[in-house]
Amino acid sequence: MEPSLEPPTNFAMVEEGIYRSGFPRPVNFPFLRSLQLRSIVYLCTEPYPEENLSFLRLQNIRLFQFGIEGKTEPFVPIPRETITEALKVLIDVRNHPVLIHCKRGKHRTGSLVGCLRKLQGWCLSSVFEEYQLFAGAKSRVTDMRFIETFDVTQLRQCPYSVIYRYQGYSSNKRRLMYGEESVQKPQVASS
Amino acid sequence: MEPSLEPPTNFAMVEEGIYRSGFPRPVNFPFLRSLQLRSIVYLCTEPYPEENLSFLRLQNIRLFQFGIEGKTEPFVPIPRETITEALKVLIDVRNHPVLIHCKRGKHRTGSLVGCLRKLQGWCLSSVFEEYQLFAGAKSRVTDMRFIETFDVTQLRQCPYSVIYRYQGYSSNKRRLMYGEESVQKPQVASS
Repeated sequence: MEPSLEPPTNFAMVEEGIYRSGFPRPVNFPFLRSLQLRSIVYLCTEPYPEENLSFLRLQNIRLFQFGIEGKTEPFVPIPRETITEALKVLIDVRNHPVLIHCKRGKHRTGSLVGCLRKLQGWCLSSVFEEYQLFAGAKSRVTDMRFIETFDVTQLRQCPYSVIYRYQGYSSNKRRLMYGEESVQKPQVASS
Repeated sequence: MEPSLEPPTNFAMVEEGIYRSGFPRPVNFPFLRSLQLRSIVYLCTEPYPEENLSFLRLQNIRLFQFGIEGKTEPFVPIPRETITEALKVLIDVRNHPVLIHCKRGKHRTGSLVGCLRKLQGWCLSSVFEEYQLFAGAKSRVTDMRFIETFDVTQLRQCPYSVIYRYQGYSSNKRRLMYGEESVQKPQVASS
């Protein structure tokens, strides 16, 4: 009989090499081990619990903490700069597979994933549909406004984003390998 | 300005190479093209619409139709044999990337994904959490009973399942490539 794997609450795959969830508890560690994670993007201000830290050390998983307040009322605006920095870690394929999580995997995680979807060129209604899928009755208009007004233009130019588009986006990966572009590329003689 | 991609409703990534969604409409075709799909597992009894069929022909995507009734009342039991056959297509990595869809991506798709999660060794409460995430207020106890009583033992023995475990499960892929097993494998001299 195989062991019964228990993913963290609100767990899902976002993209190849990118996962999302609520806060992982020790009971979820065997499942996390099965993902062979290289890094975790943690979006709370609270220090990471010692038992989670020692799991990370054991598995050689790197922790990136971007402290964002999770208060419900009054809403503290999500700092744009922090989301930008988190996105840079997220699209750096050297950090994959990566798990994004906050406390419940709804608001902070949902906002970050929403900005990633914008970077991927998703239309806003689909970005919101996904945000609401995970946030459910707890959906916040403030988060959706944040996603809507988050500007991805600059991020699109950053080197990690360009690499990610060729390595990570499922839309381009196979095209790069088999597509006309690579076939028709003019050859430069070496030396 | 990049084109605004519109995924089908209830779209999500299930696993590497496996996606799920509601019925794709022509407006979703550019997004589907970006997934570079090799096949579609379609779970309704109705014939596939002509415009979808011609998109599939154009993109060289293979259609696997497993007709399951979607009636709400009285519930027609999901045929176990059909789900087993659909699972075999799903875990055959030659069909990846594959998109599973029915009409809304809730019940039939949710039941099939639930059985896949059992095959992957997920505990039942996590399987149900995922089912309910997508079915929301439309969750059906009958679907969850179906998933609970669906026996994956036989499927675990089938060759596709064994191949999938080594190629597809994220838990084993990297281990197979870099793990001790491959290093310690005794070499057989050729002729």
